[in-house]
Amino acid sequence: MTMTTPALVSQVLLEAPLDKDRDAAPMQRQLHHRIKEAILDGRLAPGSRLPGSRALAEALSISRNTVTAAYDLLAAEGYVQSDRQGTRVATLSRPAPPRMLQTKGTPPSIPAIALRLARIQPSVPRADAGATLRPGVPALSHFPLAAWRRAVDRAIRHAGPSALGYGDPLGEPALRAAIARHLGIARGVRCESAQVVITEGAQEALALCVRLLTNPGDTAWIEDPGYRGAKAAMHAGDLRLAPIRIDADGLIAQARRHGAWIIEDDYDSEFRHAGESIGAMQGLVTQAPVLYVGTFSKTMFPSLRLGFLVLPQALLAEMQTPLEEMLRGGHRYEQLALAEFIESGQFSRHLGRMRRLYRDRQQALREALTRYLRLPHVIQGGHCGLHLTVRLPARYPDHRIADAARRYGIAPAPLSGFVLRPMPEDNGLVLGYGNTSAELFEPLVRRLSQLIRAAEIF
Amino acid sequence: MTMTTPALVSQVLLEAPLDKDRDAAPMQRQLHHRIKEAILDGRLAPGSRLPGSRALAEALSISRNTVTAAYDLLAAEGYVQSDRQGTRVATLSRPAPPRMLQTKGTPPSIPAIALRLARIQPSVPRADAGATLRPGVPALSHFPLAAWRRAVDRAIRHAGPSALGYGDPLGEPALRAAIARHLGIARGVRCESAQVVITEGAQEALALCVRLLTNPGDTAWIEDPGYRGAKAAMHAGDLRLAPIRIDADGLIAQARRHGAWIIEDDYDSEFRHAGESIGAMQGLVTQAPVLYVGTFSKTMFPSLRLGFLVLPQALLAEMQTPLEEMLRGGHRYEQLALAEFIESGQFSRHLGRMRRLYRDRQQALREALTRYLRLPHVIQGGHCGLHLTVRLPARYPDHRIADAARRYGIAPAPLSGFVLRPMPEDNGLVLGYGNTSAELFEPLVRRLSQLIRAAEIF
Repeated sequence: MTMTTPALVSQVLLEAPLDKDRDAAPMQRQLHHRIKEAILDGRLAPGSRLPGSRALAEALSISRNTVTAAYDLLAAEGYVQSDRQGTRVATLSRPAPPRMLQTKGTPPSIPAIALRLARIQPSVPRADAGATLRPGVPALSHFPLAAWRRAVDRAIRHAGPSALGYGDPLGEPALRAAIARHLGIARGVRCESAQVVITEGAQEALALCVRLLTNPGDTAWIEDPGYRGAKAAMHAGDLRLAPIRIDADGLIAQARRHGAWIIEDDYDSEFRHAGESIGAMQGLVTQAPVLYVGTFSKTMFPSLRLGFLVLPQALLAEMQTPLEEMLRGGHRYEQLALAEFIESGQFSRHLGRMRRLYRDRQQALREALTRYLRLPHVIQGGHCGLHLTVRLPARYPDHRIADAARRYGIAPAPLSGFVLRPMPEDNGLVLGYGNTSAELFEPLVRRLSQLIRAAEIF
Repeated sequence: MTMTTPALVSQVLLEAPLDKDRDAAPMQRQLHHRIKEAILDGRLAPGSRLPGSRALAEALSISRNTVTAAYDLLAAEGYVQSDRQGTRVATLSRPAPPRMLQTKGTPPSIPAIALRLARIQPSVPRADAGATLRPGVPALSHFPLAAWRRAVDRAIRHAGPSALGYGDPLGEPALRAAIARHLGIARGVRCESAQVVITEGAQEALALCVRLLTNPGDTAWIEDPGYRGAKAAMHAGDLRLAPIRIDADGLIAQARRHGAWIIEDDYDSEFRHAGESIGAMQGLVTQAPVLYVGTFSKTMFPSLRLGFLVLPQALLAEMQTPLEEMLRGGHRYEQLALAEFIESGQFSRHLGRMRRLYRDRQQALREALTRYLRLPHVIQGGHCGLHLTVRLPARYPDHRIADAARRYGIAPAPLSGFVLRPMPEDNGLVLGYGNTSAELFEPLVRRLSQLIRAAEIF
């Protein structure tokens, strides 16, 4: 089985010298990595003998302990086997994965997939994280990352190994209490912490609502234009979607009459820029038939993936058991860190700073649009949140503009993509100002202005 | 509106002296907390004036800066408002939440909820995290928590603010690559990293399979007895469940004939105690019609909530777009930390240590059962994983035993709970040895022996 001599192996390993810079990875790790690569890509075949640790250490001018540590690790991972004759590349029980997939032969027939997949419409290709004017992204560079890092680290140290296990499937009690309290003050939401269910962002909360409240074929009335994610969750639940235009009071009355539930996705009201703060619909009347959905994606950061669902008291008893079966809790250290972040006031302080920043950015974007967007347009929105909507005549198709903009690293979202059955008047761009610095607005709007004109259909 | 004098407010605040111990929370935080509590529980009514910062600082013998800092934070949170006349408790737009729910009046009628909820069976009440013999929990105190803490901290420092934003909705590329590579070596799974989708534990992976592959009313054939979570996911997808008993080769042939997909939930094979390692079904034949599901709940720790789904190459093209709409990625720092944990070999080293620990524990539990379980019984399982199954005669109903055991902090799972339509012979206890120290097995089995006998039905 010895198909390669140690000399050849040394050659493979010595192709390029190890990096002995102070900032480089430790020798042991470099060596381990290099041998693993060579095994995986086939340069070191199964059965090949590796050089003795002493010989290799000398050849590489590193300590012998380093070599044996790297070999031990490779053995633990199953890449090599050691016996009295030395160390050999293991005969992997099956060949390395990627190659095998290129075998010839008849492809398997593709069995049925879910019908609902056809209803889930592909969105515009995802923009780079760094793209400007992308809606729904908060000011990432203004997030107090160092403080958050300390909070997570503290949570791990304080909670210790006990929080490694399964916790409350509905979320850490400390976080649910902190959220209930914050919502009461900030959004007028009426709830006890037992009604708060922690979810994987608003998206899981919406999916849960669908699974808890609907049967396949039910009709969901949805705000339109509205959040794409809500529509995806409803399509996944085999619902029929119908657009609705109605205000909060009317909605509650309608819902009561028809025995329906309202899902209130209160995703950006924490950032209010003008007018008096409007409380959440959930708190407008006692025992409103409302499931309130919130997220920390905008108020903290998107990759935290932490949202919540506030169940009506009336549903709690019936929902608790199925929820405990469907959810698993988890991410406990992050949840504990966030609870501390809220209770210590760091969260409110951050919100206050961001409110000022976004108010300024919104005003600056509005001014830039007024001055540099030399086209007929109407600016909408802006009372709260992180985006403005610019409606455009139908002769400038929004999808074409968005496609062209992406090539310049600009990521406005086409308005028509938020509408269930778009009409010619549902044309425009949704411009996010959350994560784009105000100095860039002038050049960005000038560029957009050009791109819009170039997209015109005659 | 001034309903309370500053003197009264001071009294509230001074009810108990602040804690000036070195280990106590900083003065500012204590003060902030105490005022917030007083506002929330109604002792400080809306409109009440707070004492001047100078007066309060003197009364409490603390610095005036501390008082103003606490007041500023309360103002940022919306609890108080400051103007030239001083600081007052804010008139909260709505009363604090808990009280309002106790209003009298007719309760709202409860609108329809999903029919499927009735099919989701409540499990045994959840055991305390610290309960012994609980199945499915790994050895928490043996997890290298300090190393993990450093890995997370390093990921946050290295990735910086860029990883705060939305990433790849299917998961961090570095982690998907590390998993593909690990699976190829450790489990014989054949895949490229593009086929790996990161999920919220195995549970989300199972739910995704249901949503991607099935239509309401479809039949799912499931291993029985089997994982409760899989059944819950399938009930949530309105599937009909049918039990199946068949081996891997037969299953693949059957699936091909019927145009069906196989979901392989490979949850505990990393811990193999006896016999030769059996590769995953996914890798048994090329292009098997298998969706492979895995989790790090057992190999790392449950509250990491990280699992994955390996899509067959044949489905990737069709699934990618809907998956990108349905998923949001996230937990990027944890994912990056885990990728590093795997690539640096720390993961394999931990697995190696745990394999030895579990092998020893399993053997010790088996011996304890043989010696101290003085009842007719059959021990099953134990080739891999973290539990043994003890089958018992039907006259000792497993649910009764489990209920009684819970009162002693012992949490075996009743076998009948894992079976779709339990028959008298599906009676027994599933005993987890992952997180229970071997010294405890003798007293625990002696206790169980008593409890089983006490549960006998004559």
